[in-house]
Amino acid sequence: MASVRIRKAKAGDCGEILRLIRELAEFEKLSDQVKISEEALRADGFGENAFYHCLVAELPPAPGEQPGPCIVGYGLYYFIYSTWKGRNVYLEDIYVKPQYRGQGIGTKIIQKVAEVALDKGCSQFRLAVLDWNKKAMDLYKALGAQDLTAAEGWRAFRFEGEAMRMLAGR
Amino acid sequence: MASVRIRKAKAGDCGEILRLIRELAEFEKLSDQVKISEEALRADGFGENAFYHCLVAELPPAPGEQPGPCIVGYGLYYFIYSTWKGRNVYLEDIYVKPQYRGQGIGTKIIQKVAEVALDKGCSQFRLAVLDWNKKAMDLYKALGAQDLTAAEGWRAFRFEGEAMRMLAGR
Repeated sequence: MASVRIRKAKAGDCGEILRLIRELAEFEKLSDQVKISEEALRADGFGENAFYHCLVAELPPAPGEQPGPCIVGYGLYYFIYSTWKGRNVYLEDIYVKPQYRGQGIGTKIIQKVAEVALDKGCSQFRLAVLDWNKKAMDLYKALGAQDLTAAEGWRAFRFEGEAMRMLAGR
Repeated sequence: MASVRIRKAKAGDCGEILRLIRELAEFEKLSDQVKISEEALRADGFGENAFYHCLVAELPPAPGEQPGPCIVGYGLYYFIYSTWKGRNVYLEDIYVKPQYRGQGIGTKIIQKVAEVALDKGCSQFRLAVLDWNKKAMDLYKALGAQDLTAAEGWRAFRFEGEAMRMLAGR
């Protein structure tokens, strides 16, 4: 897989990125939660104050396939703030299409995120993984990540919808 | 506790906020991880492109105490991006000094975060909690939060230091 190229996403990639977001959510068995649109992805990631950044993994076309390179994976991240370490990166999504797995593409995306983080003076980057996704957890650990839920006991909580409106008295 | 006031933090509060950040990390038994300085907090939260936002809980002075209101808690948040729901809020830290707990101050901070999130068009806000901090988990659940680690199996992973440099080939 020497020919895979990890590059910054362009606004024109949003249709393909949305297809991959849906594939990832389906793989995570949580696809009912995807409410985002291609237009929102384009407006939110490519304006003056982008809310996120995205990398795509691109392969040249195979012989006899449609012309032009093909996006087979993505990594979507943004900057967060740790009150212990300062500015950091959060890798919200990382995904490689099933038929392209096992070729180091996910690792290349993670390596690129580490480069971006270091370039921006960040000392760490975080991500979340589902506990039944053993392959992903094994990969992240092999690459040096720490499982903070196991090591320190962190659990993820979320307020949304009705609970949020109740809290805000609306 | 009718007199507690939740307000936006000012740059001049950073010394007090850092003291509370250290108290929280000590409570979480992770105080060795705090590397941030008051100067960094001031530069990162109050410039043109603030990396975070902070609320403080303020009480009027008790009779015989030092003059001026006293900061007894804080909530520090920033905007993140969900590929399912779009722009969202992450509550990185929430803390109330031990002697002021049980008076609804934490709830008031959470309510204010929900207001901010809704005002900015966010449909949710997330936070993380340590699994032995049953009081906090009970409060968040009572206020309507979902434990996503229990419900969906999310685990928190982190790359840092040597692992990040290895990944980036540095």
